[in-house]
Amino acid sequence: MLSKNKVKYLHSLQLKKNRKTEGVFVAEGAKLVGELLGHFPCRYVCMTEDCALTIPSGCECDIITDEELRRVSTLECPQQILAVFSQPVYTASIADIAPQELVIALDEVQNPGNLGTIIRLADWFGIRHIFCSQVCADVFNPKTVQATMGGLARIQVHYCNLAEELAKLRNTPIYGTFLDGDSIYKQSLSASGVIVMGNEGRGVSTDVAALVTHRLLIPNYPEGTQTTESLNVAIATAVVCAEFRRPR
Amino acid sequence: MLSKNKVKYLHSLQLKKNRKTEGVFVAEGAKLVGELLGHFPCRYVCMTEDCALTIPSGCECDIITDEELRRVSTLECPQQILAVFSQPVYTASIADIAPQELVIALDEVQNPGNLGTIIRLADWFGIRHIFCSQVCADVFNPKTVQATMGGLARIQVHYCNLAEELAKLRNTPIYGTFLDGDSIYKQSLSASGVIVMGNEGRGVSTDVAALVTHRLLIPNYPEGTQTTESLNVAIATAVVCAEFRRPR
Repeated sequence: MLSKNKVKYLHSLQLKKNRKTEGVFVAEGAKLVGELLGHFPCRYVCMTEDCALTIPSGCECDIITDEELRRVSTLECPQQILAVFSQPVYTASIADIAPQELVIALDEVQNPGNLGTIIRLADWFGIRHIFCSQVCADVFNPKTVQATMGGLARIQVHYCNLAEELAKLRNTPIYGTFLDGDSIYKQSLSASGVIVMGNEGRGVSTDVAALVTHRLLIPNYPEGTQTTESLNVAIATAVVCAEFRRPR
Repeated sequence: MLSKNKVKYLHSLQLKKNRKTEGVFVAEGAKLVGELLGHFPCRYVCMTEDCALTIPSGCECDIITDEELRRVSTLECPQQILAVFSQPVYTASIADIAPQELVIALDEVQNPGNLGTIIRLADWFGIRHIFCSQVCADVFNPKTVQATMGGLARIQVHYCNLAEELAKLRNTPIYGTFLDGDSIYKQSLSASGVIVMGNEGRGVSTDVAALVTHRLLIPNYPEGTQTTESLNVAIATAVVCAEFRRPR
């Protein structure tokens, strides 16, 4: 049974400012919640009777009806369980990480689904850190959390002033994708450094673009024909990451 | 000014069965509508006063307010114009096309956004035909249309019994992605044939899988580590298409 206060609380967490104040985020579905339980402190769970997940002792848990779950879920098809986790706090800076390993930097990627999809594919391609400019979508937006498919447990997403952070790098390649860049297939790609991806409509912002050391293009096919104007940012990120990780 | 009947008609087109009966689909935004105008007969347009698009003579057009547009739009942020186009009718079969060029076959891809994103990236990678099993998302779903970013104008999307169609192929490679496939980087990829992509949760169905001649895997990195379980279907399609189109 779900109290009115709980319903109100869970609804309030659909807004970024409330998630931030409370220091929490919401995840739904037995698979995702099950995966996150091993990684983040769980503050509260509500689930239907048929949910087989074992909830850690000490975590407040309500057994609720399908109807009650529908009332608090942000999914079109609610999935047995909704859980509130503590937000992780990460403190690394690009300058500490990028000289050692490949990281992704997102410059004003604003669609929550795109951000979640990028976290999921970063996980697949063994990238452990994503640096986001402050105006990127919130990693704890419910749409982002669901799209990560658990990648959230393994990827650290940092928010920062991207241009300032990138400016601190010395001798570390900064790759960016541009429609007037050079074919990614003709460049030598390093095992560490930064891959910058830009805003859905406007691409990489001017101040960040000025710091990019290698301008990449994913060529269309046949090269130079008139096709769609660009690729979706998550799609472009995937093609670039696959190429960096391609055995040579 | 928008009549009550027009509002009712436009709302009705949010359902597949009504779009099918009427033989139409809806697109929104000056950029997308402008691109589609050159390709499909336009039946009806409503737009706000500030929309600079030139509408072909003979196409019924209402000038409406922002408030009226909000009422009929399916977008969170309506964009000046909404247009109703005739659905194209395509009749090609895989057996006619796949021996000559690369095509994508979608086996139960059910998310409209994924389908639209796949159409957009197919456009980028010079793929002109997509064959969908009957239970795939509807290509004329508003979410699909918007996600294609105009790719709809250049890509022919066919619905068929996929297993039956694929069974007609002789000596044409049928590639499919499987989590237990062989690394895509270790295979010779041909310039023609079929790339089969499966359902978001269940992958390629058993009867279609039985017809696949080359089982591909996009390796994760470092290969064999525990990462996310799989890639989003549009992401996987992009990585596979990029690899097929990669200069060798």
